[in-house]
Amino acid sequence: MSTTRTQVCIVGGGPSGLLLSQILHRAGIDTIVLERRSRDYVLGRIRAGVLEGGTMQMLREAGVGARMDTEGFLHSGTYIAARNRSFRVDFEALTGKQVIVYGQTEVTKDLYDARDTMGGVVVHEAANVAIHDAGGTPYVTYHRDGTEHRIDCDWIAGCDGFHGVSRKTIPQDVLRTTERTYPFGWLGILSHTKPADHELIYANHDRGFALASMRNANLSRYYIQAPADDPLEKWTDDAFWDELRRRLPSDVAEAIETGPSIEKSIAPLRSFVAEPMRWNRLFIVGDAAHIVPPTGAKGLNLAISDVHYLSDGLIRHYAGDDEGLDRYSEHALARVWKATRFSWWFTTLMHRFPEDGHFGQRMKLAEIDYLEGSRAAQTVMAENYVGLPY
Amino acid sequence: MSTTRTQVCIVGGGPSGLLLSQILHRAGIDTIVLERRSRDYVLGRIRAGVLEGGTMQMLREAGVGARMDTEGFLHSGTYIAARNRSFRVDFEALTGKQVIVYGQTEVTKDLYDARDTMGGVVVHEAANVAIHDAGGTPYVTYHRDGTEHRIDCDWIAGCDGFHGVSRKTIPQDVLRTTERTYPFGWLGILSHTKPADHELIYANHDRGFALASMRNANLSRYYIQAPADDPLEKWTDDAFWDELRRRLPSDVAEAIETGPSIEKSIAPLRSFVAEPMRWNRLFIVGDAAHIVPPTGAKGLNLAISDVHYLSDGLIRHYAGDDEGLDRYSEHALARVWKATRFSWWFTTLMHRFPEDGHFGQRMKLAEIDYLEGSRAAQTVMAENYVGLPY
Repeated sequence: MSTTRTQVCIVGGGPSGLLLSQILHRAGIDTIVLERRSRDYVLGRIRAGVLEGGTMQMLREAGVGARMDTEGFLHSGTYIAARNRSFRVDFEALTGKQVIVYGQTEVTKDLYDARDTMGGVVVHEAANVAIHDAGGTPYVTYHRDGTEHRIDCDWIAGCDGFHGVSRKTIPQDVLRTTERTYPFGWLGILSHTKPADHELIYANHDRGFALASMRNANLSRYYIQAPADDPLEKWTDDAFWDELRRRLPSDVAEAIETGPSIEKSIAPLRSFVAEPMRWNRLFIVGDAAHIVPPTGAKGLNLAISDVHYLSDGLIRHYAGDDEGLDRYSEHALARVWKATRFSWWFTTLMHRFPEDGHFGQRMKLAEIDYLEGSRAAQTVMAENYVGLPY
Repeated sequence: MSTTRTQVCIVGGGPSGLLLSQILHRAGIDTIVLERRSRDYVLGRIRAGVLEGGTMQMLREAGVGARMDTEGFLHSGTYIAARNRSFRVDFEALTGKQVIVYGQTEVTKDLYDARDTMGGVVVHEAANVAIHDAGGTPYVTYHRDGTEHRIDCDWIAGCDGFHGVSRKTIPQDVLRTTERTYPFGWLGILSHTKPADHELIYANHDRGFALASMRNANLSRYYIQAPADDPLEKWTDDAFWDELRRRLPSDVAEAIETGPSIEKSIAPLRSFVAEPMRWNRLFIVGDAAHIVPPTGAKGLNLAISDVHYLSDGLIRHYAGDDEGLDRYSEHALARVWKATRFSWWFTTLMHRFPEDGHFGQRMKLAEIDYLEGSRAAQTVMAENYVGLPY
């Protein structure tokens, strides 16, 4: 057994763990990041790509915003489509704010590069990570290269995702969970084609939801609502393109550039919140504590706002003020619940559910009509989409 | 058989039929109103009492707004309560508009007085009303005092409510209906007590919805969500007051003045829309075409906005322009769908449903929290509550 010591042991080397490490490092706080997977595996995951203004600001302040600002695509609005037509919600006009399209993979790469430059310790392929004595003198153990390692620390940040060990370490009689699974998934493809639009098009259709999204001028990302247990073989590229075109307004559909998919997958949709987000000397962050369906792209942004509250709390702790840590769970959850509500609302509005019936679908169309005509309703959507204030 | 002739035969002597008659009379258009019940019966019905700004304006323009303006109670906001606290949504600050509390019974009385003064023809206790040849040369028949009567007319306005004959006259293959019944009712009492507040308090509680409402400084109207099939005997006054107090914030509950109920009833909740609202020479108006749950008090206001579109269309018709009549259904339904959406949303937000589960109730509380903190969300609620523009 080898033993080391750090101030904050961060479990999970995805964007939230890395960003937390980066921010704390710049504040002179020592961290070690433990990641179960290899670096190549982490950087191969394709995830969300829409960042809120607050997220952009966090990345810039952490010194990792330069490539995002150069290569990202600012979006100042989005399109909502239904009944073969669409309208635009102008975020910038309504809130003064924009979002940026910059893939989670790119954010993660920038964070790894920054940790490398600054000599940050990120341990990959750390197996059997276990959290010990979070109520007393905490330490984390893991196996690597056939050896057991131990890290003694002041605090543990659980940034290890929904399936990670951190949340599971919190006793069941402490943790309250709120959950809903949705009766469908998102079938997505990535394709080297010109996107349907430089902004996103969210479509409500009788056959189900569709989303025309993009990564850059020659890389399209499209999604359609599909049964979460559909075999991928069923969805040939042709079948996907045909179904996508059926669900978009015909002027958009006719102009869609199709081509071979370079990635294709079906993801389930889930809403999940675990409370509290602190248990003694363990904090849970991002997907370890909460999951939102992808509609509206809140997942990564919520993880980053958790990092905001936790990094602020830890920096203030080492300066002698514990209020930020004591209120981490309360502050993070206030924002988590609002984003969970928005993601649930936007998912519900845009998708077909078996239980909708005729009345349910008519209410959705009435809400979309109302949204088109009401500046106040568009402002509600816009202020949530660009991100509520921290 | 006696035969008379009029330009517009109005079936139904509730507020929408009477107001339509009043407006058309002032424009020199002849009407006859047929009402199945006696005048005393119509004036004995206790119904909604919150009028939108547009409704107030319609009544004033029809010359029946004087008593409303003297005796009504202007409300410039309302309270939303949950988790033992409440906050106010300030309609006037957010939209520049108010609503007025003035009972439907009073509106109806003012309209009868106006019709009397002007010698309007209102036939009460008209039995077996039947609509004939709405596709050709329309006429209406009814029985009264043992005689069959016939009214020949240009147009028929069906203002005879959800159970009336007008909507049922439209062939089933023409009419499309959208409907939802809610799995609960409103148990309401009227009491000669000082109201909890001079404005309304809508409460979401784990035990179900409650509403503290008022008619005047010494007449309270309270409602609680209850099973629609509960026997009224189960709800003694004491049982009602106890349950009401449990559901309101404790500071409100402790100050509630209780007393004997002077009226007590349970009403079911329903959303219903029939389309189109015109079939040849027959127009359907108000509850004959659509029903909303009482949350947010849209029912009477929607009936009055239908009267706005129909009276405008008829006046323009007799001036040689048919566009208003041709677009009556389209114009009325655009507003009906939006109000149906708002009533459904506000009902859903504030009530407990068997299917909510823990997740559903948490989303409602998250939405109420968001509403408290977001000016845009409050504006959405306010602009719907005071009434969307005609």
